Amino acid sequence: MSEAALLIEADDPVLDSAFVIEMVRQMRAIDAYGTYDNWSVNKILDPFVMTKERKREIPVIGDPDEVTMSRVKAFYNAIAAMIEKECGLMAVPMLNLSHEGFGRVIITVGKLVVMDRTLRDVHRFGFASLSKMKDEADKLLSVALEIIGKHSEVAGM
Amino acid sequence: MSEAALLIEADDPVLDSAFVIEMVRQMRAIDAYGTYDNWSVNKILDPFVMTKERKREIPVIGDPDEVTMSRVKAFYNAIAAMIEKECGLMAVPMLNLSHEGFGRVIITVGKLVVMDRTLRDVHRFGFASLSKMKDEADKLLSVALEIIGKHSEVAGM
Repeated sequence: MSEAALLIEADDPVLDSAFVIEMVRQMRAIDAYGTYDNWSVNKILDPFVMTKERKREIPVIGDPDEVTMSRVKAFYNAIAAMIEKECGLMAVPMLNLSHEGFGRVIITVGKLVVMDRTLRDVHRFGFASLSKMKDEADKLLSVALEIIGKHSEVAGM
Repeated sequence: MSEAALLIEADDPVLDSAFVIEMVRQMRAIDAYGTYDNWSVNKILDPFVMTKERKREIPVIGDPDEVTMSRVKAFYNAIAAMIEKECGLMAVPMLNLSHEGFGRVIITVGKLVVMDRTLRDVHRFGFASLSKMKDEADKLLSVALEIIGKHSEVAGM
């Protein structure tokens, strides 16, 4: 992908939000070969932006590839990390792909399920824009924190 | 494996327990080609008995094969089915193998994690005897039901 094709601007203010910083950290954590070392932040996160045009180019046959899976994991790991920061309790993500891009992802805190989502069309995992990704993350985070607040005893088990 | 090598007796009284009947049901459910149709119950469950001698014959290289995985799933599906029968709420198992036979399996009821186990050495999944398997299942079941009883509000979410 050429630099010109990036869909996130280098000066996008959303890049400074806590969630996006955590996302970059997660992406760098799985980058065992240092491929991203010299990449700008907007280039690292660019594949998360999934426009209609990009979706059209992705075949939906068989199981999603490792790179796509690692992005899905990075997103939910980042959510778990944010939950952990906010509530001070360990949040553990668990992802299960059944077949052909379907699956389920949950995040548990203690004995409490704070997020539970069915995954569909994992091949084309992504968001309409960077700010849409942040909105989605903020929503999941606030719902999770609300559940933890209500059932703190179970979350502390 | 010849009939003579079976490690469960055909008249073992444990075969009549509710859990073992559920196990057989789970094993038949995943038997898409009807291989087990003419098999006796003790023959179907025989691979769950994992003696030291049998363990020694199993190589622990790479990921466990599909047949082993299906047995692990059948066991935890049966536990989930028993929980569901006892408490009347849907119990959902979720199994995640990370690599080389390590993983995690949880069962959730509503937003409550009623069972959470780390899996090790999945290649050699099994129990010393049929009654040991039933004991293990009974233990998991009673712990799960206790948690549900204590936190019925979260389990009903």
